[in-house]
Amino acid sequence: MLKEMRITEFLEKTASKDPVPGGGSISALAGAAAASLVEMVANLTRGRKGFEDVSEEMESISRKAARYRERLTDAIDADSAAYGKVMDAFRMPRDTDAEKGARSRAIQEALRLAAEVPLAVAKDALGILPLAETVLKKGNPNALTDGLVGVMMAKTATLGALNNVRINLASINDVSYVARVSADVREMEVLVVQMEKDILVGTQS
Amino acid sequence: MLKEMRITEFLEKTASKDPVPGGGSISALAGAAAASLVEMVANLTRGRKGFEDVSEEMESISRKAARYRERLTDAIDADSAAYGKVMDAFRMPRDTDAEKGARSRAIQEALRLAAEVPLAVAKDALGILPLAETVLKKGNPNALTDGLVGVMMAKTATLGALNNVRINLASINDVSYVARVSADVREMEVLVVQMEKDILVGTQS
Repeated sequence: MLKEMRITEFLEKTASKDPVPGGGSISALAGAAAASLVEMVANLTRGRKGFEDVSEEMESISRKAARYRERLTDAIDADSAAYGKVMDAFRMPRDTDAEKGARSRAIQEALRLAAEVPLAVAKDALGILPLAETVLKKGNPNALTDGLVGVMMAKTATLGALNNVRINLASINDVSYVARVSADVREMEVLVVQMEKDILVGTQS
Repeated sequence: MLKEMRITEFLEKTASKDPVPGGGSISALAGAAAASLVEMVANLTRGRKGFEDVSEEMESISRKAARYRERLTDAIDADSAAYGKVMDAFRMPRDTDAEKGARSRAIQEALRLAAEVPLAVAKDALGILPLAETVLKKGNPNALTDGLVGVMMAKTATLGALNNVRINLASINDVSYVARVSADVREMEVLVVQMEKDILVGTQS
């Protein structure tokens, strides 16, 4: 599993001419890193003197961020696996009409999964931002920079994953599915940029 | 070493209440991931049919990106080690005037190193962007999304690292050093945002 690789090894594999892991898995990794940083700030706050009032809230954020971290770490593998299924489908035989039909259906099904995985990554990465906002507002100020890097990583993870959704949508034939998901993608793209801006401005003041 | 940890283990350690690894090491990781993606696009281009004209350029980019990847991966550890030295200096005895002086000098020296490490990360991450621009313009279009995620990760790595420079500058007493590095930080912040914008706009058209 990619997530159990050493960092050096995982990055070497990314850099190689194999198409996976690529931008999709890296977006998931960025999201998992963002979750880790938010979790860290919450953990550096809860139970500390001077932060008694927010200790319970920080414990709850720490637990939520840990779930995002685990889910996004799993997505490093899920994204590459989904791409592998698309490649497998493209390699199916296409000598007869029946084979052509089966291959085409398998490709479409695989492409949909390859869109759904980064869509889930984008949603999770977006979900980290409100947690990040709270730890930046109420958490240990010594860890402010860690929280800020978390915000930027969550935004990049979201946009990177949405880019991967788009590229798969481009080959999907189901027009109503493509229209629906494209609208979601656009909405999330606007939302994440605005959320990051609001959090960064709110933190400076 | 952090860079030899499994991804899951490294992210768990980031999430823990230990102050390192934190935003500095994650910024270095983001830069290393960006370099990996650019290297991958170059490797997916060189030697391919239809890309004969750019094969040599792609080989050169692949080699340069690999060096950035290795240096930025090393910086995951260097950043956390630099923070450790600051903490060590703060723990020095301060009972006599001589001890107070030695401690203060050690703290200042450690803070400067803790600023220099992320400054080098920011410079390397920024250096990835022109390579990314070239692979996006001339490279294998099948890997376009990977290149775009690389651009976003390089920008985030730069801004994240510069945030870590700033936080250390805030405690450094050498006014002329702080003024000089602050000016560099501001210049790089403006530059990276502009470069990312130019590349993304240039890629869409």
